[in-house]
Amino acid sequence: MEPYVLYYWPTIQGRGEFVRLALEEAGIPYADVARNRKGMPALMASIDHAQPGTPSFAPPVLKAGDLLIGQTASILLFLGARHGLAPRSEAGRLWCNQLQLTIADIVNEAHDTHHPVSTNLYYEDQKKEAKKRAQDFTSGRIPKYLGYFEQVVRNHAGRGRFAVGSRLTYVDLSLFQLVEGLRYAFPKAMARLEPQWPELIALHDMVAERPNIAAYLASKRRIPFNEDGIFRRYPELER
Amino acid sequence: MEPYVLYYWPTIQGRGEFVRLALEEAGIPYADVARNRKGMPALMASIDHAQPGTPSFAPPVLKAGDLLIGQTASILLFLGARHGLAPRSEAGRLWCNQLQLTIADIVNEAHDTHHPVSTNLYYEDQKKEAKKRAQDFTSGRIPKYLGYFEQVVRNHAGRGRFAVGSRLTYVDLSLFQLVEGLRYAFPKAMARLEPQWPELIALHDMVAERPNIAAYLASKRRIPFNEDGIFRRYPELER
Repeated sequence: MEPYVLYYWPTIQGRGEFVRLALEEAGIPYADVARNRKGMPALMASIDHAQPGTPSFAPPVLKAGDLLIGQTASILLFLGARHGLAPRSEAGRLWCNQLQLTIADIVNEAHDTHHPVSTNLYYEDQKKEAKKRAQDFTSGRIPKYLGYFEQVVRNHAGRGRFAVGSRLTYVDLSLFQLVEGLRYAFPKAMARLEPQWPELIALHDMVAERPNIAAYLASKRRIPFNEDGIFRRYPELER
Repeated sequence: MEPYVLYYWPTIQGRGEFVRLALEEAGIPYADVARNRKGMPALMASIDHAQPGTPSFAPPVLKAGDLLIGQTASILLFLGARHGLAPRSEAGRLWCNQLQLTIADIVNEAHDTHHPVSTNLYYEDQKKEAKKRAQDFTSGRIPKYLGYFEQVVRNHAGRGRFAVGSRLTYVDLSLFQLVEGLRYAFPKAMARLEPQWPELIALHDMVAERPNIAAYLASKRRIPFNEDGIFRRYPELER
């Protein structure tokens, strides 16, 4: 089988990181194409709307044989089914998909804390609005979403260490990444709030210790968080 | 088979409308439970995080036998597979899902035009920021998204009247609803921009004429657009 190709921005974790974590955990060979010299044209072609087939609105895009798949949750739906990162049952796969889409929702909201007005303006040009939005996000939205995920993990706790089913799924990986990103962007809020979510944090820690994930996190393939990505640390957004 | 039950806010189209359109087109019996007297407690229970099983973060939620499914795109993934509203092939289903998730993205952005700072504040308390965000949305985001969908439909035009495959899918229904919603919220911008998207508008018109859809739109089951939903008409947001 020809190796998968991931098309994503080469300098940020961003939404591509949810895909990278799944590929790394499952030990699937892949080319992170834009991180190689001359890879950017291939990335741009993957989101060229005029190309026939299934052009994507935005990266990440995964090429898997003849399939070209966009949208993070759809890529994970595919990888989950094909590589044992989701339950085999329809009910289990739908539940994973639902949770992933809820994670995508809070990720979108995390992005909008630094871009509440426009993705086409710099953060510096919408800082005033960003402060309001970030205040709402840390005081209202983070507790609501993470309280939900805590409850989901707690409901399931009698059945294993994972969020869904009896094996690791991509939802566990994505919850790990969500906690990581929020800790980076809003360290004070997270330090204050985390004691409310013991099961979720235990799940995060369990993922971090998975051999493939631990090796990945220690490697150069893991791009450090930075202020070009989705999760950005702007101290002025936390009081 | 016991009829499906839809849990959604009873006074708005909102995200639930994408599910209603799929159920109506496929002629699937369903109870829109919160629209019946005494239905609100059932809706609230469907998003009670503490319940075991698969509680949803927010509506819409669909109960189908033993399945309780949240997140619009996941509900449509289920309905598409079970009721002939998506291709049978894995590639076709992933493509439908990808397009639906891209529709979900612009729907989220449409919501944020009137709530750019906080979903917990009234529109009136974030009107200033809303004007900026709406200006960016109509000048930048609508053209970018709908230009993409136009290209997708155009790429496919040689193969039939639909966005995907050779039969109607839930993506066609959702594109119809997206155009309807944007026309309601931003009539001036849409009137100006629509000539750029002839294939997309033709697809919208084709959906409107489907017998089941036409009957639904003429019925009391179709809730009129209003200023409590996702697509809201605030004239001051269009110059």
